[in-house]
Amino acid sequence: MQAGKPILYSYFRSSCSWRVRIALALKGIDYETVPINLIKDGGQQLAIIEYLEEMRPTPRLLPQDPKKRASVRMISDLIAGGIQPLQNLSVLKQVGEEMQLTWAQNAITCGFNALEQILQSTAGIYCVGDEVTMADLCLVPQVANAERFKVDLTPYPTISSINKRLLVLEAFQVSHPCRQPDTPTELRA
Amino acid sequence: MQAGKPILYSYFRSSCSWRVRIALALKGIDYETVPINLIKDGGQQLAIIEYLEEMRPTPRLLPQDPKKRASVRMISDLIAGGIQPLQNLSVLKQVGEEMQLTWAQNAITCGFNALEQILQSTAGIYCVGDEVTMADLCLVPQVANAERFKVDLTPYPTISSINKRLLVLEAFQVSHPCRQPDTPTELRA
Repeated sequence: MQAGKPILYSYFRSSCSWRVRIALALKGIDYETVPINLIKDGGQQLAIIEYLEEMRPTPRLLPQDPKKRASVRMISDLIAGGIQPLQNLSVLKQVGEEMQLTWAQNAITCGFNALEQILQSTAGIYCVGDEVTMADLCLVPQVANAERFKVDLTPYPTISSINKRLLVLEAFQVSHPCRQPDTPTELRA
Repeated sequence: MQAGKPILYSYFRSSCSWRVRIALALKGIDYETVPINLIKDGGQQLAIIEYLEEMRPTPRLLPQDPKKRASVRMISDLIAGGIQPLQNLSVLKQVGEEMQLTWAQNAITCGFNALEQILQSTAGIYCVGDEVTMADLCLVPQVANAERFKVDLTPYPTISSINKRLLVLEAFQVSHPCRQPDTPTELRA
């Protein structure tokens, strides 16, 4: 392992890991992946992204304007603190197999109803204006989770179209769960 | 209402509102409270605190050192994104009356096990070093929630002693749920 190269403890499917992988790709930071199967969920990975932003400010993941920064953080926190924690693996285990799908769909739908409305006033090409921000790093993995849980996305045209525009970007491609060192063969693409 | 005076839409008991009230008190920002009974939970209020920090940088709620900043954000996100969302009102309603207490205690205990360990390496007088930070704004309301849910705090000596040192500070006193405009008479102190 190269000296000084950062190590990312990552799980291919974790939306928390994916957010950080996108940030690393956007900032052009080379890293080693150490796959772990058991992940601590929650919003902690936003602390890593804020740290990366401070240590490697270019390209920016937070806009310069304080009100726009607040919008980016509000959207990021809504997803990473208001939606994702309710549908992560450890919570779903507690909910029990029978109720899992309904529970997850409900958490995502409630969150996406709020998110769609917020995005209608903040979005340009991406979540906040026309530059990729931390909010976009949160959006794409959460939409992927919504799709895994078979949430109908037709009521969310703003979310869906921003997601499509982001998924074609290289940083979102190379960081995608289907292309990680620990992605099982049958899920590779 | 005075022109330019910020309005805080607040619920006396909400730990999310309380965090923001502490930040406003620490920064000496006068505000109007508009009590609301129905609150949107989740971590969104950290976006308000980051915005306050940028617009009114003194006193700092984030340390200058990037690694310490990352610790503060990690602790804040662990609480606001990893614990609080799992034990908020709307989730407990879904869990159902019978299981509510066990569910909330479990969420808090899991989170506090991780938090106690982290604090053992970051804490000074407060959560990270000897200055009050955003992490402390998250800690105190969460410990109050733990007490409401009758979580045994003896396994968490670091959490408990930091909490005690914070609760005597004026900003934490004036922002306390028992002293808000919408606090019911029987809960006032």
